[in-house]
Amino acid sequence: MPDVLKNDRFLRALRREPTDTTPIWVMRQAGRYLPEYRTTRERAGSFMGLAQNPEFACEVTLQPLARFELDAAILFSDILTIPDAMGLGLSFAHGEGPQFARPVRSAADIAKLAVPDMDGELRYVMDAVRLIRRELHGRVPLIGFSGSPWTLACYMVEGHGSKDFATLKSLCWNEPKITHQLLDTLARAVAAYLIAQAGAGAQALMIFDTWGGLLGPAPFREFSLRYMAQIVADLNADPVSRELPVVLFSKGAGAHLHEMADTGCAALGVDWTIDLADARRTVAGKVALQGNLDPAILRASPEVIRREARVVLDSYGNHPGHVFNLGHGITPEVDPECVKLLVDEVHAYGRTLRAG
Amino acid sequence: MPDVLKNDRFLRALRREPTDTTPIWVMRQAGRYLPEYRTTRERAGSFMGLAQNPEFACEVTLQPLARFELDAAILFSDILTIPDAMGLGLSFAHGEGPQFARPVRSAADIAKLAVPDMDGELRYVMDAVRLIRRELHGRVPLIGFSGSPWTLACYMVEGHGSKDFATLKSLCWNEPKITHQLLDTLARAVAAYLIAQAGAGAQALMIFDTWGGLLGPAPFREFSLRYMAQIVADLNADPVSRELPVVLFSKGAGAHLHEMADTGCAALGVDWTIDLADARRTVAGKVALQGNLDPAILRASPEVIRREARVVLDSYGNHPGHVFNLGHGITPEVDPECVKLLVDEVHAYGRTLRAG
Repeated sequence: MPDVLKNDRFLRALRREPTDTTPIWVMRQAGRYLPEYRTTRERAGSFMGLAQNPEFACEVTLQPLARFELDAAILFSDILTIPDAMGLGLSFAHGEGPQFARPVRSAADIAKLAVPDMDGELRYVMDAVRLIRRELHGRVPLIGFSGSPWTLACYMVEGHGSKDFATLKSLCWNEPKITHQLLDTLARAVAAYLIAQAGAGAQALMIFDTWGGLLGPAPFREFSLRYMAQIVADLNADPVSRELPVVLFSKGAGAHLHEMADTGCAALGVDWTIDLADARRTVAGKVALQGNLDPAILRASPEVIRREARVVLDSYGNHPGHVFNLGHGITPEVDPECVKLLVDEVHAYGRTLRAG
Repeated sequence: MPDVLKNDRFLRALRREPTDTTPIWVMRQAGRYLPEYRTTRERAGSFMGLAQNPEFACEVTLQPLARFELDAAILFSDILTIPDAMGLGLSFAHGEGPQFARPVRSAADIAKLAVPDMDGELRYVMDAVRLIRRELHGRVPLIGFSGSPWTLACYMVEGHGSKDFATLKSLCWNEPKITHQLLDTLARAVAAYLIAQAGAGAQALMIFDTWGGLLGPAPFREFSLRYMAQIVADLNADPVSRELPVVLFSKGAGAHLHEMADTGCAALGVDWTIDLADARRTVAGKVALQGNLDPAILRASPEVIRREARVVLDSYGNHPGHVFNLGHGITPEVDPECVKLLVDEVHAYGRTLRAG
């Protein structure tokens, strides 16, 4: 890679090394709360038109960095690119969530699924990664990502969003073998996808397990965690991706942090329902933590945002290994000025914390 | 009350006394999965027409007891009767969740709210309780219930369902005094409502805090738990309601069980994301536990339903103080035959456990 990294705070924090202040990035930082994002999105015509065009994807990836002193960029893409590349036909109805034209339900559907070609159907993602890396000029590291096998399967089997994804859950209980076949194919695809992103220039990797928290403890282990652990093992066995820290984020899975910390990942994302002090004790120095401001706080007053940012920083305390983030993605109603004051407060108070 | 209770398994389990087997009831047991419910619902014309008519409410309350050997009846009603009685205008759009015609947003809106008259606007609820008690002939105990202040406020401020109820959260952070005024009025209304239900013949009381789990630990304490504790204290100070066990259920709040157990309630509802063995250790004999089968399991095969019911029973083990239930309400797609086999399996295996 051509450029020397000018700001390595994020990567150092993921390795639990000392930093001058706490690094921060924001889940969905390239998103609808930014007017310039909405403009590019309109030019692209559709969400998939935006995500599948490397120039547009690069443009929106860089937009939040032009406004805020963020410590990482994250590839603009969708968590469902893999099933789309598998032929399920992803689209986003206006104002609705993702939809698959061809959901998978039967053993035959699942047997037909193959790991997509990273230089074929998913080449646009690697092209975007390469372009963003070039355009970043080493300013901050670039995060590559994927949905987790469980979360991909939720949408692939249900065909769209759901409160409980009961169709996949029924498959788990009635047809565990077929479910494991699906999850294993997805785990191999996710590993290949993240290795390809690493090869294209991603400098950290994150797995979003958005719906892991819908499972009880035993099914979480069997159907979600096991496959994330398999992916982490594959990433740690590859000569390129093994150099990249991996962050696992299972929303609503605060009860499983101790097991997730044993997968060999570098860090865990934590949502806002868990106190970071408790989470830090639970993971006992095995991993860094990323989180965990309630995204709804960004709709409060500047004073409240600053105060609550300090509460999060204090809950982690003056220890290495904290990456500040929201506990979930930023929502469209947020005023970008509130993100600016959050980023600035985190950096300022993070310095104060270290001064002790 | 005229009739001697013929089956007191549920009340004994809530008091952590020995029982011959594990009692079971099912959240939303009088619901759309039953064809006879759908027939009565149609005759009533609308959901509110059903809930506000004591004869219809009694009819649907008793329907599941005619099919299954359930150990408790629960008043058929809605969690939002209090704000409706406060004048907010509750309705249920077809296939949608609850809607309020007049949500409350401003300090002036909130200042105008008063505790409704339990012999006036909410008399229909007490009439239903009296009628159901009469028609039950002491077969099983009758549970009265309410939404928690936090959960009522979620809908009252947002005006309808939401993923994150960010409007109320903004109010919490920007206007904590006004928010506390709202929650305090609601807590006094809920206490009066549950005391009135006790006076009308309810034999146990439950508070549904459906959205408590949306809050981080500190806001949960401040905006949800504090008011549930206030209600429990009020119930324990009333000569009639103090005799009734109170169950608190905050969905997604497994991390707060130890604090909830200190409110003076008799039992805690537990959703399926927590292992009951862990929950039992956490509450350390202070309260009984109610739960926690994943409702999605009722869409699996009979063998799986039986096996998973046994897993839940084994996770609690052969100790007093377990009421079997789902971790959340039963869904409309469930085959009633699956409920029958669940109830029968819980009773049969509960006996085996005790013989163990």
